[in-house]
Amino acid sequence: MYTLYYSPGAASMVVHLALLELGVAHELRLIDLEARAQKDPEYLRLNPNGVVPTLIIDGAPYYECAALLLLLGERHAEAGLAPMPGQPGRGRYLQWVLHLANTLQPAFRQWFYPADFGPPEQSDALRDFARQRIEAAWDRLDAHLAGQGPYVLGTAFSLADLYATMLMRWSRNMPKPADRWPALAALAQRIKARPSWRRLYAIEGLTEWA
Amino acid sequence: MYTLYYSPGAASMVVHLALLELGVAHELRLIDLEARAQKDPEYLRLNPNGVVPTLIIDGAPYYECAALLLLLGERHAEAGLAPMPGQPGRGRYLQWVLHLANTLQPAFRQWFYPADFGPPEQSDALRDFARQRIEAAWDRLDAHLAGQGPYVLGTAFSLADLYATMLMRWSRNMPKPADRWPALAALAQRIKARPSWRRLYAIEGLTEWA
Repeated sequence: MYTLYYSPGAASMVVHLALLELGVAHELRLIDLEARAQKDPEYLRLNPNGVVPTLIIDGAPYYECAALLLLLGERHAEAGLAPMPGQPGRGRYLQWVLHLANTLQPAFRQWFYPADFGPPEQSDALRDFARQRIEAAWDRLDAHLAGQGPYVLGTAFSLADLYATMLMRWSRNMPKPADRWPALAALAQRIKARPSWRRLYAIEGLTEWA
Repeated sequence: MYTLYYSPGAASMVVHLALLELGVAHELRLIDLEARAQKDPEYLRLNPNGVVPTLIIDGAPYYECAALLLLLGERHAEAGLAPMPGQPGRGRYLQWVLHLANTLQPAFRQWFYPADFGPPEQSDALRDFARQRIEAAWDRLDAHLAGQGPYVLGTAFSLADLYATMLMRWSRNMPKPADRWPALAALAQRIKARPSWRRLYAIEGLTEWA
């Protein structure tokens, strides 16, 4: 049994999607980010970074959404949603998950929370710089999918596609949303057509970018 | 056989250290960052991000230093330098490697290359914000090591310690270097005492923070 601390549409979304795709039993605990519940002392004992997601596994808390994704893929290898160590595609899978985790996701942090990155009066400029880095990352991912897709790992759907699509969703209100790139749009359509996506939307109460 | 494209002391350092620790055959190819060799069309075909490291495995190029670290740990599981899927500590290992990769390493990018993050005339302020995020990360890692160390995974040395120590080295000329935190300093001493560290220094021609 897993327990996922989540907030609708936040970085917990990809872990929630993975749990649904893998078909494993889990409980959900809503963390109200607007009420700053992620900074409550009780929650900080689970996750000292004060963010979602946190996943309870065998009674112990774990965090970092990309780490949780890798871990769930390994713990449920029989689902075939991630290449395992020694299998073809393992290196590409790790490469792309890490690329999304340390290039694209931090750039979104700067887009959404510019005051953590520079002087408050510079927020518009900081968001513009974040936008440039995000769009450059879409350029590269789109070129990769166009040449070697349609999925991140080629012909095989994997958890990396859920991660990419969650990040694409985060761009929906940006000047140039990710689905303006043709290969990215095609990937998003495939992921949105999966039952897990629709179930997640119903459970988390999401409506935008359905 | 592996081929590592590297630059002394850059993010390739942790991959080089891992190759030495694992005792596996490898060749080195120096990329001259000052001559911007990482942006040569020939290198960009290997690594479209135009950074080091790139690791050639079975003739194909792979990148993202944390992904390469995870991959090498799996490919050489017999060395026992990383918990494997299903083993105790695997979740913590992934959590910490991902935390270093998506929180600490991107903050260093802002510290070293502020012009990628905001207006050039704001570079001093941007570095100060990066410094605050880096020091907050040291606070958390130091508390973790003090309570559950001395290694990142407790009593077991792992590749995650090499990664943490490389990042600590990057702070050596900052106002408050990482080794001002006692548990971080103790970890650095342990890693610097390993033969792999001394061999790497000799091969890469490093002298600072020996």
